[in-house]
Order: sequence, then structure tokens, then C-alpha cells
Amino acid sequence: MPELRKDPISGTWVLISPERTDRPTDFGKELAPPSRSGDCPFCPGNEAMTPPEVLAFPKTGKKWQVRVVPNKYPAVTSGGVADRLGEGLFQGLAGVGIHEVVIESPDHGATLATLPESAVEDVLRAYQSRFHAIEKGGRFPYVLIFKNHGPEAGATLEHGHSQLVALPFVPPRARQELDGALAHFSRENRCIYCDIIDEEEDGPRFVSGNDDFVVLTPFASRFAWEVWLLPRRHRARFGEATEAEGSGLARALKQTLTSLDRALGLPPPYNFIVQSAPFCEDVDAHYHWHIEIAPRLTRLAGFEWATGAYINPTPPEEAARKLRQIMQLASSGRSKA
Amino acid sequence: MPELRKDPISGTWVLISPERTDRPTDFGKELAPPSRSGDCPFCPGNEAMTPPEVLAFPKTGKKWQVRVVPNKYPAVTSGGVADRLGEGLFQGLAGVGIHEVVIESPDHGATLATLPESAVEDVLRAYQSRFHAIEKGGRFPYVLIFKNHGPEAGATLEHGHSQLVALPFVPPRARQELDGALAHFSRENRCIYCDIIDEEEDGPRFVSGNDDFVVLTPFASRFAWEVWLLPRRHRARFGEATEAEGSGLARALKQTLTSLDRALGLPPPYNFIVQSAPFCEDVDAHYHWHIEIAPRLTRLAGFEWATGAYINPTPPEEAARKLRQIMQLASSGRSKA
Repeated sequence: MPELRKDPISGTWVLISPERTDRPTDFGKELAPPSRSGDCPFCPGNEAMTPPEVLAFPKTGKKWQVRVVPNKYPAVTSGGVADRLGEGLFQGLAGVGIHEVVIESPDHGATLATLPESAVEDVLRAYQSRFHAIEKGGRFPYVLIFKNHGPEAGATLEHGHSQLVALPFVPPRARQELDGALAHFSRENRCIYCDIIDEEEDGPRFVSGNDDFVVLTPFASRFAWEVWLLPRRHRARFGEATEAEGSGLARALKQTLTSLDRALGLPPPYNFIVQSAPFCEDVDAHYHWHIEIAPRLTRLAGFEWATGAYINPTPPEEAARKLRQIMQLASSGRSKA
Repeated sequence: MPELRKDPISGTWVLISPERTDRPTDFGKELAPPSRSGDCPFCPGNEAMTPPEVLAFPKTGKKWQVRVVPNKYPAVTSGGVADRLGEGLFQGLAGVGIHEVVIESPDHGATLATLPESAVEDVLRAYQSRFHAIEKGGRFPYVLIFKNHGPEAGATLEHGHSQLVALPFVPPRARQELDGALAHFSRENRCIYCDIIDEEEDGPRFVSGNDDFVVLTPFASRFAWEVWLLPRRHRARFGEATEAEGSGLARALKQTLTSLDRALGLPPPYNFIVQSAPFCEDVDAHYHWHIEIAPRLTRLAGFEWATGAYINPTPPEEAARKLRQIMQLASSGRSKA
């Protein structure tokens, strides 16, 4: 029987409905899109095709491994002040913010699953460096770090990259999580994310864990094969992650993405986001930063848009079980070799 | 400069960001999917491929023009009771409900834009008949009627069809609208939708109007070319629409979809939903049923999923202006002919 599950943090509803997987379709599978690395603005040698860089690793000597540039087609504009706009029924804010692109590697075809762990660590270090700089700038209450991988997940360029957006407001989904986490803290005097980590460890939705991170499929997974990575150490903001946590996260992230590739037979399109607390609010006791990975195997259609709820054909317990199997096989393969 | 706009009803945030239209892309346009009308379960002659029909028009004599059948791959299950599931942090409901498909025409390739007005009226009559039957059944608090047109909008079958889902809970987006409408009513003692109709009539976001319906592009359009159709007569539920309103809606809907096809050069993929009040709640004074059409020209990507806010590259004022022009041209063409 399908189950309607409620996310314990945000209150988001998900319909876990395995029968939906068997639906026939008239429409062919999309063809692999053509790649055109020759004139890729993110490839080495084409640096002049992007605005001047904000950051590059390593800083001196050798060629860059990670490069951060302003988005040439920003969703928000960097100049001006986020003034209120409109009046009466129709109000808003000027769309002021920062929109940057993190180029993850000089290699056009590399992904966070195929890059060496140390290179994934460098990407995370670049995120953190920009996160700190924007926090210090004090102009914006919120920084969003996210990634669209593959055209089905909204990527328009193939060369591996992530995005960083500083916004003049706290976005609705972050607000939902903050409100839900505060409600739990008010009742229980505990962080709801810490409670979830305790509850899920070695349970049916537990995928893997290392000293610093726990990987699990959330109870109310909105997407088939959705995976969350949570730091064991309670902190509200991504910027507070330590060097050791950066290594633990790089290891867990690469292992998770590699296992998803194997579980699904080929690298899936996915989005990932770093969920972190706003700079301006005292939410340190009840909020807990983390990373969410959402493979985009089915399209969001009328139901999701109309209801604000989700239909997910893959129970998170099944996804977790398969990911655990794949990780066990990989580690026994390594120990035999 | 991009504008962050707040929807006056639901509070949804949208970033109107015209600069985003010019982005280059590595990825080719998707090829038109193959059609396979031969073994289409919705074509006449293949009635045995669907579960037995719940409703068909006309009821006797001639062949059916509209046919309603249970969804063979339902997201919710029709048997049982919507019991509470789970405990502690992890709670939910059994996924009990009704999931039906409305086959809009015997013609495989017909669409709501190409069907004659009277046939569109029949489709709306079928919606209303099932809406009333489920209301009368008294098992479910909410009925959702929606349509996925084209694979990019989540359709899996090509033959024109809509969907009807009775749910055991009031979905979050309806709740958001109900809450927003109630807040406005508490402050102003007026329906916010009636206020919007008054405010927008002949303004920059006004598209067209007839005796019964107003068509406009909403101030905080989440999608490029989003269009709403609102009945002038204040009623909370779609089931309360009169015969005359059905005709007015069919006319407005066909005209709007035809104009969108012309504006965009080819029929766009789109979702549409009938937003109506729950059966069980006394919201008659402040809620106002309506239809929302959302062309799906860009993909929802990491930003939308991460923030719960939307990026829309086409200002609604620009979309409304072009739709008005197209409708004027069509009507002057008709008057000259």
C-alpha cells in the first residue's frame, strides 16, 4: 500500500508509491546530449570567456585545480541595495545578491564521483572560502550552495561546476526547516537532526558512516534514491566545518556518488545542496547543517507543483539497502586486492 | 534589475530574472519523442487495456467523446482507510485515495487547444461530475484535478488526458493558499482573489476577459508564461461552477492555450491545475476557485528545489502584452473574414 510520509523536520509530505515504477510510456528516452568541450568556458585556456576569477586553487605556481568566477548570467545582481519594491497587494524586493560558479576541476569530463578524494576536498574548501567571505561581507543573510549535474537536473553546461548564491532573504525551504527544528527543540530540548542521526544509525535507512559523517536515506525522501549526509558534530553552519570534517565529507560524498552510479547502472542526473543556517539569526542550538543529494530520475509534474507534496516510487529503505550492499562489495573487493 | 516578487496569496517568492534567458547551453534540444498511437490504451477500440470506465460521455447511443477510467498505476490506493502510520519522529498516513484518468477525446492527437469549444466543455463537465461524486462519497477532504501535457511536463502517454486525485489530506500548497486568503480576509473583510481581479482588470498583467472569466498573468509568476483563469463570481469550489461558467471557461481556456501555442511558436509542454477548496472546511467567504496554467519551458533545478523559491526569466507583464496582441490579431482576423 502506498504510504504518505511526513518529513519530521520540514513537514513536507511524500507519497511513497512503488506501483508507479511500472508505468509504460509513449515517449522515448532522451538521447545523450552532445558535448562540446572545444569552446567550453570552464576549460583551461578559455579563462577569458568567464568574468575574472574570485578565487583559484592553488593560489600560486601550478595551474588551477578549482576556480570560482562570477556567473555571467546571474539570477541576482551584485550592485545596489535590496530595497522593498511595489505596494498594496504586489510587493517584493530588488533582486540583489551574489551568484558565482565553482569550476570543480580543469578536466572537462571529471565529476565529484570520479575526481580523487583530495580534489573533492579542494572543491569543498572553495565553497567554504566563499561562504566565509560572504558572511564577513555582512550584506546578505543567506548563502545557498548547490549543484545541478546533468541536463535533466537543470545543468546547462557539461563541465563539472557548482553554484553559490547569496540572497537578500532567507528562502522558504530553509525557513520551513528552521521552524520545524525550533519546534522540536522547544518540545524536546534537543536538536532534531541529532535525534535523527541517533535513531537511524544502523537502521533500515542507514547507508554508511565514518568518524565525522552519517549517510542515510531520509524517511520522507522526496526523490527516488535521495541521500542526506549529516555531520555527527552539531553545528548550525557549513562554515563551521573543520579541516577533518572536510576530509570526512569528501570521503563520504565521493563514496555515495560512486555507489549511486553503480546502483543505477550509470551516473544519474542529480542536484545537491548544502543546507546551512542564515548568518543573522541565533539558531545555533536547534539547526544542524547538512548536505542533501537528490537524483532526478523522474520529472516533477503537475501533482508535485499543484500539491507541494511529492510522489516517490522508490522506498528509502530499499535504496539504503542497495547502497549498503554496493559499499560492502566495494570494500570487500578492496580488502581482497 | 532582477526583482524578487512575493505572491500576495501564498507568500511564494519568485525571482523575475530576464538576464537568464540568454544563457548558452552545451546540451542539444530534446528530440520530439516517438508517438505510438497503435497500442495506445486511450484510443477507441483499446478500451479493454484500461480498467472499466467510471464515466463516459455521451452516456448512450453514440461513441464516447470523453471517458473517465481508474488509473492503472495509481499513486494512491482505493481500498482501505487512511490510518495513521508510524510513531515518534517518523509518522504518516496510509496512501488511500482515488486516482482517475480523464481521456479528453477519442482522437489520439487532439489537445484542449485544438478540440472544438463544445468538446472542451464536455471535458470540464466530466471533471465536475467526478468532483461531485467524490464530494458526495464523503471519504476524502480534497480532490485535485490536473493535467500534464507533453513529456517535459511529466506526461507519460501522448493521448490527451487529465488526472483526478482524491487525497486523504489537504495538500500543502492548497493549505498555503487557504491560509493566505484567510489572513487577507481577516484584515480586509474581502476575498483576495476578488481584489486581484479588480486590481488587475485592464492592467499590464491582464490578458483577456469574458462575462464569466478573467485571464491574467500573476504578479509573482513562478513559471515563464504562467496564466491564471479566475471566475468573476466568487465561489470556493470548482463544483459550484454553473453551466454558463462552464461555457465561459471552455472559451477562455481554449483561447488561452491557442494563444500560448502561437506566442511560443509551437505547443508548449504545460501543467494545469484546478485549485479548489477542501470539502470539509468552511472557507466559502475567503477562498475562490480558479485554474492555473504553467508552461514548462525551463527545468526546475537545484535552486528551486533548495530554496522553495522560483526563477522566472519572463516578466509576466511581457507575457500578458504578447498574449493580448495575439488575441487582438486573431479577433481582427475573424472580424475581417
